Amino acid sequence: MSRRLVLADAGLAVIAEEGMRGLTHRAVDRRAGVPPGTTSNYFRTRRDLIVALTERLYRRLTPEDAALVEAAAREPTRDQWVRLMVELVERALAQPALHVALWEIRLEAVRRPELMPVLTELVRGGFRADVAFLHRSRLPGTAHEVRLLHLAINGLILELLTLPDALEVGDWPAIAADLVDRIVYATPGARVPLGDIER
Amino acid sequence: MSRRLVLADAGLAVIAEEGMRGLTHRAVDRRAGVPPGTTSNYFRTRRDLIVALTERLYRRLTPEDAALVEAAAREPTRDQWVRLMVELVERALAQPALHVALWEIRLEAVRRPELMPVLTELVRGGFRADVAFLHRSRLPGTAHEVRLLHLAINGLILELLTLPDALEVGDWPAIAADLVDRIVYATPGARVPLGDIER
Repeated sequence: MSRRLVLADAGLAVIAEEGMRGLTHRAVDRRAGVPPGTTSNYFRTRRDLIVALTERLYRRLTPEDAALVEAAAREPTRDQWVRLMVELVERALAQPALHVALWEIRLEAVRRPELMPVLTELVRGGFRADVAFLHRSRLPGTAHEVRLLHLAINGLILELLTLPDALEVGDWPAIAADLVDRIVYATPGARVPLGDIER
Repeated sequence: MSRRLVLADAGLAVIAEEGMRGLTHRAVDRRAGVPPGTTSNYFRTRRDLIVALTERLYRRLTPEDAALVEAAAREPTRDQWVRLMVELVERALAQPALHVALWEIRLEAVRRPELMPVLTELVRGGFRADVAFLHRSRLPGTAHEVRLLHLAINGLILELLTLPDALEVGDWPAIAADLVDRIVYATPGARVPLGDIER
């Protein structure tokens, strides 16, 4: 693994243990067991460091290409839609610290607007990839419906990771299935087309 | 205003400017312009301080009683459902730093499980109040549907506050209306009843 990746993983471990407030270049040096100044050489500013961590995060939260090819080949049924959402939540729950770090970084962007353009590109890229995957999978749904599910499943993952008992979301696979039924498969009332990222 | 509230508001201002990593008893003393040690006298531990800030946050994000009485008296139509969701998002967007602080505190609870019981009670209390409000308002919907809308609207608010351009959620009033139509008013496919907080 390259030195950059080793440092990025060390930075993610620092965030997992101490939160964003523990994230300094020196802390990453210590965690990676490299000489002081190494992290600064690779990532000059705090912004550079955070961007590298975020790219690494996304990589680690995204399924392998082979798994995506396999998933896209399944029958395009309602159960497959639900399974995709359940797998998404399972990935988050399997690596809670990574997912929490992603949200901590996003919240930090509110105070550090210089992070916003690159984070926006990363999230937007993930969203476009999801829409393209849906298309390849021959599943019903539009980019707008992917967006709505994103919002709701993000909300669900955050509840599960932070305060799982507050809204009683313990039976989350049933909740994920219900969201698919309501957002993708239900007969709508009045619906409004939105956005320009269409499949 | 009581000294406790002055200190809590000062703590929220510290988080707004510097994030959780800036939140120390000394920083709150400085911000409130009180002698060093004052905040420690009122809130002995970091946990005590964070709990007080969270209670204050909730108070500041909740509408006044008079506004709730007025809102509950409106006609229980689909447009009223949508209006309630739009007002909820507007409150968050009007005080973005408060809302961001709430999520930073929730994420901190992942690393500080001693925060979880009291935060769970606060969030659960807000949820129960929302369900009771729905009932008083004679609007259609169950506790489960309030839960689903909570998840999706939380996801929407977080997108709007952190990376508004990533998923193209700029036309958020239409998105909020669409979520109400799909979650409360659409004809469902297979639906599963969930949870024990029922109206």
